[in-house]
Amino acid sequence: MSLDAARLQPMANAIRALSMDAVEAANSGHPGMPMGMADVASVLFTRHLKFDPAAPGWADRDRFVLSAGHGSMLIYSLLYLTGYAAPTIGDIRNFRKLSSPCAGHPENFLLDGVECTTGPLGQGLAMAVGMAMAERHLNAVFGEALVDHRTWVIAGDGCLMEGINHEAIGLAGHLGLGRLNVLWDDNRITIDGATDLSTSEDIKARYIATGWHVTTCDGHDFADIDRALAEAKADPRPSLIACRTLIGKGAPNKQGTSGVHGAALGAGEVAAARAALGWPHEPFVVPTEILADWRSAGEPGRSAHGAWAGRLEASPHKAEFERRMAGDLPHGDGSGEYIASLIANPQKVATRKASEMALAQINPRLPDTIGGSADLTGSNNTLAGGIGTFSKADYAGRYVYYGIREFGMAAAMNGMALHGGVIPYGGTFLVFTDYARGAIRLSALQHARVIYVMTHDSIGLGEDGPTHQPVEHLASLRAMPNLLVMRPADVVETAECWQIALAQKDRPTVLSLTRQNLPQLRLTDAGENLSAKGGYRLKAAEGPRKVVILATGSEVELAAACAAQLEAQGIGTDVVSMVCTELFDEQPAAYRADLLPADALVVSVEAASTFGWQRYTGTGGLNIGIDSFGASAPAGDLFAHFGFTAEAIVPQILNTLNA
Amino acid sequence: MSLDAARLQPMANAIRALSMDAVEAANSGHPGMPMGMADVASVLFTRHLKFDPAAPGWADRDRFVLSAGHGSMLIYSLLYLTGYAAPTIGDIRNFRKLSSPCAGHPENFLLDGVECTTGPLGQGLAMAVGMAMAERHLNAVFGEALVDHRTWVIAGDGCLMEGINHEAIGLAGHLGLGRLNVLWDDNRITIDGATDLSTSEDIKARYIATGWHVTTCDGHDFADIDRALAEAKADPRPSLIACRTLIGKGAPNKQGTSGVHGAALGAGEVAAARAALGWPHEPFVVPTEILADWRSAGEPGRSAHGAWAGRLEASPHKAEFERRMAGDLPHGDGSGEYIASLIANPQKVATRKASEMALAQINPRLPDTIGGSADLTGSNNTLAGGIGTFSKADYAGRYVYYGIREFGMAAAMNGMALHGGVIPYGGTFLVFTDYARGAIRLSALQHARVIYVMTHDSIGLGEDGPTHQPVEHLASLRAMPNLLVMRPADVVETAECWQIALAQKDRPTVLSLTRQNLPQLRLTDAGENLSAKGGYRLKAAEGPRKVVILATGSEVELAAACAAQLEAQGIGTDVVSMVCTELFDEQPAAYRADLLPADALVVSVEAASTFGWQRYTGTGGLNIGIDSFGASAPAGDLFAHFGFTAEAIVPQILNTLNA
Repeated sequence: MSLDAARLQPMANAIRALSMDAVEAANSGHPGMPMGMADVASVLFTRHLKFDPAAPGWADRDRFVLSAGHGSMLIYSLLYLTGYAAPTIGDIRNFRKLSSPCAGHPENFLLDGVECTTGPLGQGLAMAVGMAMAERHLNAVFGEALVDHRTWVIAGDGCLMEGINHEAIGLAGHLGLGRLNVLWDDNRITIDGATDLSTSEDIKARYIATGWHVTTCDGHDFADIDRALAEAKADPRPSLIACRTLIGKGAPNKQGTSGVHGAALGAGEVAAARAALGWPHEPFVVPTEILADWRSAGEPGRSAHGAWAGRLEASPHKAEFERRMAGDLPHGDGSGEYIASLIANPQKVATRKASEMALAQINPRLPDTIGGSADLTGSNNTLAGGIGTFSKADYAGRYVYYGIREFGMAAAMNGMALHGGVIPYGGTFLVFTDYARGAIRLSALQHARVIYVMTHDSIGLGEDGPTHQPVEHLASLRAMPNLLVMRPADVVETAECWQIALAQKDRPTVLSLTRQNLPQLRLTDAGENLSAKGGYRLKAAEGPRKVVILATGSEVELAAACAAQLEAQGIGTDVVSMVCTELFDEQPAAYRADLLPADALVVSVEAASTFGWQRYTGTGGLNIGIDSFGASAPAGDLFAHFGFTAEAIVPQILNTLNA
Repeated sequence: MSLDAARLQPMANAIRALSMDAVEAANSGHPGMPMGMADVASVLFTRHLKFDPAAPGWADRDRFVLSAGHGSMLIYSLLYLTGYAAPTIGDIRNFRKLSSPCAGHPENFLLDGVECTTGPLGQGLAMAVGMAMAERHLNAVFGEALVDHRTWVIAGDGCLMEGINHEAIGLAGHLGLGRLNVLWDDNRITIDGATDLSTSEDIKARYIATGWHVTTCDGHDFADIDRALAEAKADPRPSLIACRTLIGKGAPNKQGTSGVHGAALGAGEVAAARAALGWPHEPFVVPTEILADWRSAGEPGRSAHGAWAGRLEASPHKAEFERRMAGDLPHGDGSGEYIASLIANPQKVATRKASEMALAQINPRLPDTIGGSADLTGSNNTLAGGIGTFSKADYAGRYVYYGIREFGMAAAMNGMALHGGVIPYGGTFLVFTDYARGAIRLSALQHARVIYVMTHDSIGLGEDGPTHQPVEHLASLRAMPNLLVMRPADVVETAECWQIALAQKDRPTVLSLTRQNLPQLRLTDAGENLSAKGGYRLKAAEGPRKVVILATGSEVELAAACAAQLEAQGIGTDVVSMVCTELFDEQPAAYRADLLPADALVVSVEAASTFGWQRYTGTGGLNIGIDSFGASAPAGDLFAHFGFTAEAIVPQILNTLNA
């Protein structure tokens, strides 16, 4: 489309009108950002963004991320105007209502064209970094003919103030992600007022210091916007485009103030805006000619998509490319033989080491994986299987040195998973899920296949002490919807957990792994993945069953020792390895009741908070755990100190039985 | 002390020797940082830091924060060498053992002189920002005669890569905290290897862009270090001093590599280091002359302390200053009259508004409070009681516009609370506790009186949708040790919760508050703070009791409606307002049993994850909650959609009773 302002201005004003009208109808929402960024977005969508509204899932489309997700009416307007199947104008009329896919913040699982769920500030930008990483990797693997697209972000002052911004741009600058372009809505207003109430930072200088290209434009001058976007595309570095804008532009009495940020304008101001914008049309009505102009914006993308489809047809990589973008696993993962080899030759290793052993099997067979660690590679045991380093010099590498950036790593992994074609996994200590928690929640909410390799998962890490010892983390992660938390007890279960995690197309997994060695408890080949049931009977009572001990990870060995002592006293005891409570809860009631019989004392043993275990043990059961912070000492001393020995636990079981 | 290298070098080497010997004895720990920063620390402690080893609690001491907490042997060495009562040399010999206060990472609750608990990277620096804020505030209130000290930080590359670094330095630069000086251990090594594996950032340029003064020094040249520290003190801006160092300096074969970062050197390398350093002494032996030099380092501080004590004696502010630094509350908080006024004139308000009303009572009476919000002032209702803005222009102000920096805010509040003399509170949405979680955990671990004002605490926030609706957050926070999570049901309970939170000298509180209006349920004056018991019977069964409904916050109203319907059918029903499970769990067993009788059906009703409620309801009870993510719609529609109506709940109770 040409840079004819006479045509572009009404197109941009259509965004403004739809945005203010939808917020007005909902009496809820954020008109300021869509109205302020309408001109920039119009130039982006008509002259730079590569997209095909008829094929929102086209693999080689540009990715557009609205990091300032509260301005959701901007993207809903754009998707409707450019002719995506959804949202319809009816959906927009029902903005922020239960029946509409036009939710308060954009949700990737409700609308095609919404590449990721945004609203928690800063994370959209950080996910875009992951998308740009995935693009460069797939480009290196499959070539320019199949993979050659950009990632565009609209970010606000909030996104740029959040700490994750620092982690994300540091990573992007270091990795030289030149296909990443961030349009900063530089409106100098936040909810509390002018930005100078809380910040004095020279943002442009900070980006330059981090290896970015920076340019600026007048966010209401189409030619200047176009010039800046072209400049950003041409520069080999990631680009920040500071778009100087007026928040709420078009609302004559409220624009430029925090009053326009997050509330409906009110009938009077909407009317005044209509007059100021020269937009006499009824609410939700876009004149045919303007709509036609918008509908033509996708034409170049449609052509490009057609040409690309031809290249894909001709490509020898077609089947593999399509498999990867569909997120399907290749046939045959070799895990059967691997587990058979463990049964034949049992291994006493830490489950973090077992994870490395599993990865050594997986990574050579599954080219989809992109691993990494937040500066704990040797501790998380995440580098395995001969994958090279992902770097500016070699995007074909599959191992990312994320640096000390847990939150940034997790968000980048979300972006990679949502981009598709890759399966990201990354490591840190389990306790530092706290640093990454905002992104772990978005993995779960967005149905993203991200695998968190969280090692050093209890007081068993020893001397580093309470700041490094997770206590409440397993409970806090199990409370999160749509997240698998897996705590394998030995090398075999660890292999099973990896198999399960990789198969979860629609949800993330946290693998909780030990620092310390654990004996192999699975010594016969079950012929199936027992961990897939979430919990299973590792050892059945020998005498009449009076006790069932539920344990996870490193405490399963201890549970077995307790059971042996109880059996020696004639007390039949089951041991259940509760690898993953979420999967267990999904089993049929009969299966669960068989493992948790009403006529036995049910005991949970886990070196972590007891919070939540009562749903299995009942209030009459026994919960062995740690409901305080840890301490600094060698691991063995700590387990004894906190009562994790058979000598400490068995008497409690006997007392409860006799009570 | 003079800048005589011949005296300083053996003093610095004493730190190196103690550090490598302690790590060697523990066969665990991090020798690289203490050995690399020994020279810088020696100059700081002998020539710049104001401290009195005989009075570690002296209010006007400089604060020293080892943000790179893994280098804990640096601070243990310094405390021992300068003559603090603890640690003893025996404690250092037992580094990282259960009996020793010399834990793996420095813990403020184990040793005086350790101002805060560090290890989770970046947070030490961010807490130091809070300490520097508290210092400037108390200086503005009490004057230079009583408050006139600096905050010094040693930070590593990890601290500077973490996202919280961006938030912390942005706040410090904006607030012009010139008394904050950060010594960056610029050794260019992280655990995974050279820093250029993961970062290409110009750190100095980034600090300058954020309003900081930056200088550099050779971290092994005493005169140059001294020059840089003096320059930092003289500059009115916060200062970053880039100390170019060799990690593990003194270990001739391992220095300058990641191998020296986090593991014992080994006997051979320790011997080689002894030779290289010219340190022939036995492990843990510091020659008398060197020890004497170290013991004299505190002399200037001792004198300064004496002079200060004289000024305090003469000050008209003495009693108030001592009260505030002791953390005691003034007598009489006026809450009795305030609650009486509510009973006389019931209010239907959101609990976030009730919190503002409580603050309007508290803030004028309690000068200790410093409030704020992460850019949600008008939503969190945190500005009340006529407190002015805390800014570079007026440090006497008591309201902080933290900007969009949840994690930075929480960590700064930790620093303020640990500094003493102030009681910080700060707001954001409950869902964004995820962003601040690392700091909330440190509030709890450090026994810090920080009050989190977390509003918009359920699907009741409505249209903003699942990214903004907490579901698992109450459970995940309740699982954390030493943290009170309070969810008041009305304006009276909110006032009670504020009273309780302020009285917690040794632990933090999360106040979980609604966006939406709630009727006042407490209509008679109880004459005591009922919320202090954690849970209490709000309404007793009229007929024979068959049901007990436990509810919190906005769902107590709903529980009362369900009870009314049940009573109408002759089913006696108690309603318990479970304001704070942690306080309830601390009540005598008889009290708890009285509220949770074994012969009644116990039902929990909370618009959040059911995870954890089974400890009160048993497995035979009923848990009404939300175990999925929320949705975007008006609040009333959402409560109906998720089954939070008496019409949806009462039949479930009847079915369970009849089962």
